Amino acid sequence: MKNYILLNENAIYYECGFSCDNAIFLKLGNESFFITDARYTIEAKEYAKNSIVIESSDFISDTQELLKKSKIKKIVFDPNDFKLAFYQKLTNNLKINFVPKENFSKLKRIIKSDEEIKLLKKAAKIGKEGFKELAKYIRKNGFEENENFLHFKAIEKMSNTGNYDLSFDPIVAINENAAKPHALPTKKKLKLNDLLLVDAGVKYKRYCSDRTCTSHVDFEKFSFKREQKFKNKKHQKIYDLVYKAQLTAINKAKVGMKASVIDKIARDVIEKAGYGKYFVHSTGHGVGLDIHEFPNINSKSDVIIENNMVFTVEPGIYLPNEFGVRIEDTIVMKNDKAIIL
Amino acid sequence: MKNYILLNENAIYYECGFSCDNAIFLKLGNESFFITDARYTIEAKEYAKNSIVIESSDFISDTQELLKKSKIKKIVFDPNDFKLAFYQKLTNNLKINFVPKENFSKLKRIIKSDEEIKLLKKAAKIGKEGFKELAKYIRKNGFEENENFLHFKAIEKMSNTGNYDLSFDPIVAINENAAKPHALPTKKKLKLNDLLLVDAGVKYKRYCSDRTCTSHVDFEKFSFKREQKFKNKKHQKIYDLVYKAQLTAINKAKVGMKASVIDKIARDVIEKAGYGKYFVHSTGHGVGLDIHEFPNINSKSDVIIENNMVFTVEPGIYLPNEFGVRIEDTIVMKNDKAIIL
Repeated sequence: MKNYILLNENAIYYECGFSCDNAIFLKLGNESFFITDARYTIEAKEYAKNSIVIESSDFISDTQELLKKSKIKKIVFDPNDFKLAFYQKLTNNLKINFVPKENFSKLKRIIKSDEEIKLLKKAAKIGKEGFKELAKYIRKNGFEENENFLHFKAIEKMSNTGNYDLSFDPIVAINENAAKPHALPTKKKLKLNDLLLVDAGVKYKRYCSDRTCTSHVDFEKFSFKREQKFKNKKHQKIYDLVYKAQLTAINKAKVGMKASVIDKIARDVIEKAGYGKYFVHSTGHGVGLDIHEFPNINSKSDVIIENNMVFTVEPGIYLPNEFGVRIEDTIVMKNDKAIIL
Repeated sequence: MKNYILLNENAIYYECGFSCDNAIFLKLGNESFFITDARYTIEAKEYAKNSIVIESSDFISDTQELLKKSKIKKIVFDPNDFKLAFYQKLTNNLKINFVPKENFSKLKRIIKSDEEIKLLKKAAKIGKEGFKELAKYIRKNGFEENENFLHFKAIEKMSNTGNYDLSFDPIVAINENAAKPHALPTKKKLKLNDLLLVDAGVKYKRYCSDRTCTSHVDFEKFSFKREQKFKNKKHQKIYDLVYKAQLTAINKAKVGMKASVIDKIARDVIEKAGYGKYFVHSTGHGVGLDIHEFPNINSKSDVIIENNMVFTVEPGIYLPNEFGVRIEDTIVMKNDKAIIL
């Protein structure tokens, strides 16, 4: 792939170590161009490696100009990143073949470098600190606070009061609300012996962490640790089952396996116990600059697992109108095995 | 426009009073269809007015099916809301003419109903309360706090600790950082006699508020009121000039004017004082379900101003490496005049 055009912020960052919310990256043979507006050119010139920075107030015509000058005949692009209106304006009157390749940047990024893994580890560490601080807050002040408020506190603690960006909007859900995999916070209040699910992550130098904890609510001993003692026996049973599914998948994941096999290992544990139909999503997804990358860990994924892949293992059981349990860690494949980051 | 297809969340909400992050809305003659996945169908059936809710695990083929059955020959869509990959899959093998109309939902929404204006007023009121609470915090605890932290506190106070969604990520910028119209927060600390710019808004029932205040920093008397006394004379001079530009534009804005005339009124005040080249953006933008709607208030906008239009008036002067001032209010055109919400 000698020639390609990128619009996605993380795809651009991966190429040159800099990005911003209004840029086009062009790779034309050996030359790279970073096209942006006047707000970002100073920083782009300083940080965008090996790239010629073009200040532009008309991205379409400046990009067309560069493409024409380059004399290339074809160029790769990701049709998921291009709005139709933009694509039509850009390709209008150009005699260049635009070759669609869906997810081609994410596919490039499926194996992480050691440097990237260091950043992902650091993000995971900061994320764990955030969970600890949130647990401390809940022990002190969580009683009778509602999900909206706790959701806000999750943002505060995970971001270290604004010092880190979050990987995504956290999920904070109590009991039956946790039965929705993508629950939005409500006015429901936290009470003794509730079940609380928190799914949250932070970014360190743009690399994401991702972790989900499901916990028993006890205002003296509340924690996000993996060992949880629930008052409610059904909570405990489902929790233990999800935890077993997760540990089994992590322990058995090996380099050379198909991703679908890891999904099957987790799913089998839950299916054998009779809860298969309540595990309504895939077992995991890659994590990197984007919170959702490759490999997908689902029943259809033929990707062969390799060292330096980073992905989540996050089985869950969702009992509608009762409660839900999800346990998620992000792992890296190292020395042929899965290690929790 | 008898037939149209919508993907944008706010465009869909405007049609039927409900929306979610994964839906397609189809208007086919007299019938409306709300296509979504299993997570949202219960709420869609309850809240999506006059719409037939279709639960779908394959949006493309279910939408194609509905289109084929309807026997329509053409359908309007907004090419800015369609990714190329999605558009190509959806239109593949369909004998229906997809007619592109950029911004056609936003154009429909340019004149607000009285009901919408009530919601926008309420959003503005909640936003002002947020600014007041933030000012109170700064008086008590702002000294030597950095922009990252104050940015987080702006989110906390504007959202009423998680009770309201924000219209956008707030801008919190001190002195030379305020010279960037879209400044990101840094570790720069707030000190006595600094200039602080805060641009923030909240949503009430999905309708946005938008306001920018520039203030003199005094830890006893700090406020976001429009009357500001700066220690630094240049701060004061530029502030007074921007404020004059804003008030002149608001006072002179009349129904029947072109939007570009309002832009010119504000710009003339600043140009006459010799700072025209430092007013680097347009004078305003419409506000509604989206934070940026029509009418645009810029030098090229031929839109005729009408009653019940809602837009910002926000001139600014940005002196690179020194400081920036922007003063923004959202106004509604009522009885032929502009009233601050």
